[in-house]
Amino acid sequence: MMLDKSCKEFIKELSSKEPVPGGGGACAYLGALGTALGAMVGNLTLGKKKYKEFEKDIERLLISAEGIIYDFERLVNKDAEVFFPLSEAYRLPKNTDEEEKIKEESLQKALVDATIVPLEIARLCLKAVDVHEEFAKKGTKMAISDVGVGVIFCKAAFQGAKLNVLINTKLMKNEKLKNLVEKELSIIEKEIIEKADRLYSDIEKELSGR
Amino acid sequence: MMLDKSCKEFIKELSSKEPVPGGGGACAYLGALGTALGAMVGNLTLGKKKYKEFEKDIERLLISAEGIIYDFERLVNKDAEVFFPLSEAYRLPKNTDEEEKIKEESLQKALVDATIVPLEIARLCLKAVDVHEEFAKKGTKMAISDVGVGVIFCKAAFQGAKLNVLINTKLMKNEKLKNLVEKELSIIEKEIIEKADRLYSDIEKELSGR
Repeated sequence: MMLDKSCKEFIKELSSKEPVPGGGGACAYLGALGTALGAMVGNLTLGKKKYKEFEKDIERLLISAEGIIYDFERLVNKDAEVFFPLSEAYRLPKNTDEEEKIKEESLQKALVDATIVPLEIARLCLKAVDVHEEFAKKGTKMAISDVGVGVIFCKAAFQGAKLNVLINTKLMKNEKLKNLVEKELSIIEKEIIEKADRLYSDIEKELSGR
Repeated sequence: MMLDKSCKEFIKELSSKEPVPGGGGACAYLGALGTALGAMVGNLTLGKKKYKEFEKDIERLLISAEGIIYDFERLVNKDAEVFFPLSEAYRLPKNTDEEEKIKEESLQKALVDATIVPLEIARLCLKAVDVHEEFAKKGTKMAISDVGVGVIFCKAAFQGAKLNVLINTKLMKNEKLKNLVEKELSIIEKEIIEKADRLYSDIEKELSGR
């Protein structure tokens, strides 16, 4: 599995010209790192007298965060799985009409899966930001910067996932699916950017005392 | 070393209440991941006939990227090193005037190092975005989404590092240093946000055909 590698190895393989891990998998991984930062704040809050009234909420949020991290980790592997057939399809010859037809069919088939995975990553980023929103309200103020870092990671993971959707829908012949996917993406985008930017800027103001 | 852990382990330890890895180290790691994506595009470009005129530039950029990744990796460890004394200082008792004085002195000393490291991360993020700017111009268009993902990762790494600076300068008594650091940070911010947003939006437009 991709995330069994060491962090250093992951960086090295990401920088290589090997097809995986690629940008999509890196985004799913970033979502997991961001959500882990939110969970850290939850774990630092548990058992603190000052935040006793939120204890049950924090426990619930930690369970959500754990589920989201698990899903992001799964998507790192899934992104690698769907990218292989796509890179194979790209490499098919197209010297004859027959070859061109086969290449186009393989490509279109592979593009669908390769589009759906980053879309799933994008959806999950929004769930992750929602969890951070609650950690910002109920988590220990001692670690408020970590909530802000977590939020900005999840926003970046979304923005990266978006480009990975677009590079695939760009070539997609199924206009109906293409439009559906791009429509959903823009709905998620509006919500996540608004929430993440507000959260980040609130935390920034709190820290800079402005 | 922090990055010898597996990716999964890193996520798990990040989410725990243990002091390290923390938000600062996660930002340095994200900078390395972002720069690795730029380097991937460079590596995919090398040897391509279509980009022959940029071969020498790409080779130079890859060497820069490798240096930046190395520095980010070093900063992951450095962030952990400077955070330990800070978390120790936070935990010192302050029941007597003498204890309070010792605590305040330890805290102020630890805050300086804990501020400088995320500032170094912030500076390095700008260098990384500059490298991406050139990869976007000279790298293979086949992987242009990965340049966009790399840029947005480096921007997020900067924004996270910024919060890690602010949470420390907030408590800093040395006003001169505090002002210097915050001034430099805002200069870097202006440049990196402008560059990263322009690059990301150009790539987004290119991919969505608008």
